[in-house]
Amino acid sequence: MKSTPANYNSWIDEYHQGIRYGMEGKILINEKSTFQQITLIESKRYGKGLLLDGCWMTAEHQERHYHECLVHPAICSAENLHKVLIIGGGDGGTARECLRHKEIEHLDMVEIDGRVVELSQKYLPTLGGQAWNDPRLHLKIEDGIAWVAKANDNSYDVVIVDGSDPEGPSKGLFNKSFFNNCKRILRPGGVFATQSESPEAFRKVHIETVRILREIFEFADPLYGWVPMYPSGWWSWTFASRERPRYKNPIAKRAEFISKECEIWSIRWQQGAFDAIPAFIERELSK
Amino acid sequence: MKSTPANYNSWIDEYHQGIRYGMEGKILINEKSTFQQITLIESKRYGKGLLLDGCWMTAEHQERHYHECLVHPAICSAENLHKVLIIGGGDGGTARECLRHKEIEHLDMVEIDGRVVELSQKYLPTLGGQAWNDPRLHLKIEDGIAWVAKANDNSYDVVIVDGSDPEGPSKGLFNKSFFNNCKRILRPGGVFATQSESPEAFRKVHIETVRILREIFEFADPLYGWVPMYPSGWWSWTFASRERPRYKNPIAKRAEFISKECEIWSIRWQQGAFDAIPAFIERELSK
Repeated sequence: MKSTPANYNSWIDEYHQGIRYGMEGKILINEKSTFQQITLIESKRYGKGLLLDGCWMTAEHQERHYHECLVHPAICSAENLHKVLIIGGGDGGTARECLRHKEIEHLDMVEIDGRVVELSQKYLPTLGGQAWNDPRLHLKIEDGIAWVAKANDNSYDVVIVDGSDPEGPSKGLFNKSFFNNCKRILRPGGVFATQSESPEAFRKVHIETVRILREIFEFADPLYGWVPMYPSGWWSWTFASRERPRYKNPIAKRAEFISKECEIWSIRWQQGAFDAIPAFIERELSK
Repeated sequence: MKSTPANYNSWIDEYHQGIRYGMEGKILINEKSTFQQITLIESKRYGKGLLLDGCWMTAEHQERHYHECLVHPAICSAENLHKVLIIGGGDGGTARECLRHKEIEHLDMVEIDGRVVELSQKYLPTLGGQAWNDPRLHLKIEDGIAWVAKANDNSYDVVIVDGSDPEGPSKGLFNKSFFNNCKRILRPGGVFATQSESPEAFRKVHIETVRILREIFEFADPLYGWVPMYPSGWWSWTFASRERPRYKNPIAKRAEFISKECEIWSIRWQQGAFDAIPAFIERELSK
């Protein structure tokens, strides 16, 4: 049960309810921003990685598991893609996946912590990639909750929430008032997307998030996938839309172009991931 | 990034390629059998747990993630259920899920390490549950590879392989000669099932296993699910059959009866789990 580190001098672990997930590596940066503790590491297995308040956020060779699954079900199914909003997503991965879609004309990305953006640009340049220099990207270092509260009705074709667990700066990204604003600013034919935690490690928050979204939008469904570094490795993203569950039917032309370069996401994978709802969650949601 | 253990005095970790997954707990038993190192722990999060050669095998409150997904796709879809074979499965969880099906008349379970059975019966009694006392269970402490080599042609309706990673006593459960025998002893209308490792943490073995099974049987498909304690948390099981991919169509009557009591498995979940093949594996398998 022992391993022999070679050139890596420690284990960096996230602790969660009696479980830990660790990567062998070394700490590059460990500092406190206005909002949170930011840690950057160099890991043996997954390249450079980012933790916020001691929780794994992303790593160079494991980030597509998360970003592809958050972005493409929404972007591939919205009626139009003129204007898109990302709340959070400071590492740049969500913006990068969005901007692979040439139809997007204007992308607002509202991240509360400018230091996360600066450090990601410096240490995790492949996350944002060309997105940081794309003239369609409009980066605002502001509070995303205030942003959606003041944004005009019907102003975005897609709204994507890429925040961390509902603690610290992300706490307000999981409640009715926030989701109501997300719906209000969404154009007809638009799609809403949010990461919605683990059905195993954050079961209560996960179920509550799906329930609230079903109350607010006409349609909302969770999709289940894998992010090994997150608690339990079992993750979910929830999509919502009005009139019909638009997110279940990606537009073939957009999807084919994108999935050729994807690690995880494909139309087939997405169909499966919406169906792969564990029996205990399905029973809970039907109550 | 620190936690404060209360009544649990250590972290028990599995190390795999620069990653570790640990449970807070205490070691109850740590002994070497003829075949392997057997460790039993009491964990804070998932109850009692079992490790073999330092690798997580099962835990009381996480075992159904694995056992339901290995057993029900096969058992629910085979034409008949007169006689079933399990290779491995010493903790008893696979036998328990099988014997929930009243149609099974005779279940041979061939486990190489009698000590795993004894310790599981003592420390993990809920794993096997009533299976240990079920007169339909015929437990043999023998080498499963030799068992399938000597078994008669067309002698089982379902063959389930519940072994650990392809190291130590499980090494021979992942090759052509073994799988050929599994096919030979399977009756027409029968279904074969094996755990087939993680598409992330054991990518090469996973792909190779699916390829060999496709070569040997007419049809073989991987199904993807979650076992948080296994490397990457992302796990697969592969099912195979002749004439048609029978495992994709569970018999409704059997499935409905069973899924009511399942944590993970349902017909819908299974359909999704077969489709949720990540793009990188789908491309690799189509080469």
